[in-house]
Amino acid sequence: MDLFEALYTTRAMRRVSPDPVPEEVAAAMLDAAIRAPSGGNSQNWRFIVVTDPEVRSRLGPLYRRAWDRLRSTVYAGRWEKAQEAGDEAALAVMRSSQWLADNFETVPMWLMAFHRNDPSGASIYPAVWSAMLAARAHGVGTCLTTILGTFEHDSTCEVLGVPTERGWRLAAAVSCGYPLGRWGLARREPADRVAFQDRWGEPLPFAVPNPMWLP
Amino acid sequence: MDLFEALYTTRAMRRVSPDPVPEEVAAAMLDAAIRAPSGGNSQNWRFIVVTDPEVRSRLGPLYRRAWDRLRSTVYAGRWEKAQEAGDEAALAVMRSSQWLADNFETVPMWLMAFHRNDPSGASIYPAVWSAMLAARAHGVGTCLTTILGTFEHDSTCEVLGVPTERGWRLAAAVSCGYPLGRWGLARREPADRVAFQDRWGEPLPFAVPNPMWLP
Repeated sequence: MDLFEALYTTRAMRRVSPDPVPEEVAAAMLDAAIRAPSGGNSQNWRFIVVTDPEVRSRLGPLYRRAWDRLRSTVYAGRWEKAQEAGDEAALAVMRSSQWLADNFETVPMWLMAFHRNDPSGASIYPAVWSAMLAARAHGVGTCLTTILGTFEHDSTCEVLGVPTERGWRLAAAVSCGYPLGRWGLARREPADRVAFQDRWGEPLPFAVPNPMWLP
Repeated sequence: MDLFEALYTTRAMRRVSPDPVPEEVAAAMLDAAIRAPSGGNSQNWRFIVVTDPEVRSRLGPLYRRAWDRLRSTVYAGRWEKAQEAGDEAALAVMRSSQWLADNFETVPMWLMAFHRNDPSGASIYPAVWSAMLAARAHGVGTCLTTILGTFEHDSTCEVLGVPTERGWRLAAAVSCGYPLGRWGLARREPADRVAFQDRWGEPLPFAVPNPMWLP
């Protein structure tokens, strides 16, 4: 797959079928992940490929509790606001996020990513994103979630047997499966609205076509 | 460029020539960055493309001060240990990091990335990594650094006019330029040594060739 096709069409793909993700795809995701650069080349990462139905059934309730916490705190009022404003894009994100919480156990594979001595996240998330791009090349949809780490860190690590006493922290739970929806270009606030030249607020001296790549 | 070639060969490329990065490449990097997914599709990112020699000359001393702080704290003793152990890979990382600090002003372009309401970094670093992969496709080498944000956050933001009072934080300073060295596959601890199945410590039930992709 062309690099730019992957970069432009790997959007959050939450609704997936229960069909298993082949082991070759999991292997490709893991090997792509570890090729990413990390601070001082420390490679302070670990991954767990979760497919066992029993483990998924123990994590599902934790994920839903975390999702409920997110909805009642950070996302408080967001659903109602989006409904009032008729903001279909925001409603679509909320609905598919709700779907993922409701269907945690039927998602065939979750890739859990851990890090240590990486306070900014600058070393783990490029690796996680590489795994997601590799999945895309194999037709597997993914979604990077952080709510288990934010709201259910220790309970999740207990289920997975993570040695948190040695500094390991859950950075991401990535859902993986064959998409029920279609791949496509995500709409975004254009680059020239969010990028400046030399100083904050100074417009770029060049045009950025929106988008620069088309399928 | 093939996705896997980009994922496998985009290593930290610190030594670069002073030749300018074309505006089309900067545009391609920015537009790739904003296609990345972000938590709740919040797109809470901003970028500054720094090429102005005066701005670079104000940031260089801050970068070197940050690098000295890293060397005397997190990296304390690392150089000596690597020398004693004859660890050429670690020495190469230290030497090229020193080169980047010594030559901050001659690096033709720095991409500064900012985020807010993104405590884990899960929303900004995929976007930054996408920009770095897009640069790779155009033959431009990059290195993701975080030391300005860690050790010189407010002074850097002051130079760049960042409205920190509105919650914006520097997430990364990415050096960009045409490489003096060669692209190549980075050596890594193999995936099957850092990845488990279903529970921490459980070996993967499948093989992961090291590497799975070859030039």
